[in-house]
Amino acid sequence: MKRWNTVAIVGVGLIGGSVGLALRQRRLAEHVIGIGRRASSLRSAKRAGAVTRTTIDLSRGVADAELVVVCTPVAHIAQHVRQAAAACVNAALITDAGSTKVEIVRQLDGSLPGSAPFVGSHPLAGSEKSGSAHASGDLFKGRVVVVTPTRRTPKAALDVATEFWSSLGATVAPMSPASHDRALAATSHVPHVVASALVSSVREADFPLASTGLRSTTRIAASDSELWAQILLSNSTQALKSLDRFDQSLSALRKAIRQNDTPQLVKLLGQAKRKRDALGN
Amino acid sequence: MKRWNTVAIVGVGLIGGSVGLALRQRRLAEHVIGIGRRASSLRSAKRAGAVTRTTIDLSRGVADAELVVVCTPVAHIAQHVRQAAAACVNAALITDAGSTKVEIVRQLDGSLPGSAPFVGSHPLAGSEKSGSAHASGDLFKGRVVVVTPTRRTPKAALDVATEFWSSLGATVAPMSPASHDRALAATSHVPHVVASALVSSVREADFPLASTGLRSTTRIAASDSELWAQILLSNSTQALKSLDRFDQSLSALRKAIRQNDTPQLVKLLGQAKRKRDALGN
Repeated sequence: MKRWNTVAIVGVGLIGGSVGLALRQRRLAEHVIGIGRRASSLRSAKRAGAVTRTTIDLSRGVADAELVVVCTPVAHIAQHVRQAAAACVNAALITDAGSTKVEIVRQLDGSLPGSAPFVGSHPLAGSEKSGSAHASGDLFKGRVVVVTPTRRTPKAALDVATEFWSSLGATVAPMSPASHDRALAATSHVPHVVASALVSSVREADFPLASTGLRSTTRIAASDSELWAQILLSNSTQALKSLDRFDQSLSALRKAIRQNDTPQLVKLLGQAKRKRDALGN
Repeated sequence: MKRWNTVAIVGVGLIGGSVGLALRQRRLAEHVIGIGRRASSLRSAKRAGAVTRTTIDLSRGVADAELVVVCTPVAHIAQHVRQAAAACVNAALITDAGSTKVEIVRQLDGSLPGSAPFVGSHPLAGSEKSGSAHASGDLFKGRVVVVTPTRRTPKAALDVATEFWSSLGATVAPMSPASHDRALAATSHVPHVVASALVSSVREADFPLASTGLRSTTRIAASDSELWAQILLSNSTQALKSLDRFDQSLSALRKAIRQNDTPQLVKLLGQAKRKRDALGN
């Protein structure tokens, strides 16, 4: 017998499609219902083997689910979780895959209809590519998934969320929504802003002189603009704070260059190198 | 008969070692003389098969060479080219692999001893790793090598430089030293500064929450600090100008975030995405 009889996935893009593929490939779910707005995305997810059935009706799609995973863009998650909660009274868990957590959890915590508990999740996995065509059943393998319980979260629901993401191969890290958003501003949101600013500042006429350095440094700027605008604006306070920290680091380097201060520049670049070496591959 | 009887490589790190390996693997040179200050680096280059003989004496090492390639750090290149020029009166070409060109060419153009002509070169290939242990005979394959002739450069010397880098698999792009330094400030030097500032601004406590985005964006911050301090300071005017352009792009994005301006943020991120898509992989 499989772990889940029916799992519903709301939003079958890169993340939702990968959740479905992982569940199917690991034989964890008998039925995987793909829920989306566009018939073309749903067909593509079914063709990829990520879901067994599809529907554009969220309430009907989640009705029989024991687990609902909401993988829609950040600005829609709270609404979709609320709709799912009203329709799937028997689910053991509703969770999401949103890149920011404070706003989503604040909108849902303690105010959901029905009896299904919600635990916020954020799988630190993804790509600058989007759509279930790029989904992979191994996307979460060896990755960290942050789960963000609050003091209202039932212990049993947190356990189910932890077991779920672990069963897809991830390492689960629980933390508060606020700690998550503060950390991710630095490790994810600011790098996106910086990569976008960097590629914007290079003239296309100079692209033939781009080496691998520019390519790797700006790769994530190719991500979906709508999705990332939502992410940044739903965590703008922390993103702006982290941008200030980035500014301070950049100003120190710039000052050393302007003052032609070799020892200071070597020192600052050396500190950055040691930190980057510590970050690992 | 091979193209070259004797090639001398001054500085047998990643670039020098790769030049040697490429010459040997493509059977372009009978003898490759590795010249360096440290016996350990020379032993390592010989063990890697990048050079056939080694010496710590630059003047003796280049004496019989028909081609001298100076692959030492930027701050030492002009001096090493001058020394080589005085010692190898019969060479068809002396070239280098320095990441900046204006200062080096200004110090050498029209003032070299001997008869060997100098043409500045910059292979747009490399890695955050250093040392001949990471060298590869394919490092230049499919890459661009910029050559920077001046109005004093003999046509024959430019032809030899072009033929040399082409024979290692590279595409050769001639341009003025000033055009090179202006373009590379944007495509290489600023990305290095930004990557260093970015990793410096992230708390190590948050590293467990780093995704692939932060890693790729900061990868080049692991480069050698001494080498990069020299590169940045030998092109500081252009680097600072390009940093100003980066600042303008960053400020526009930051303003859209601060003002919670979704359409403007989507627009700016979309422009960056289209540019990054145009840059390619």
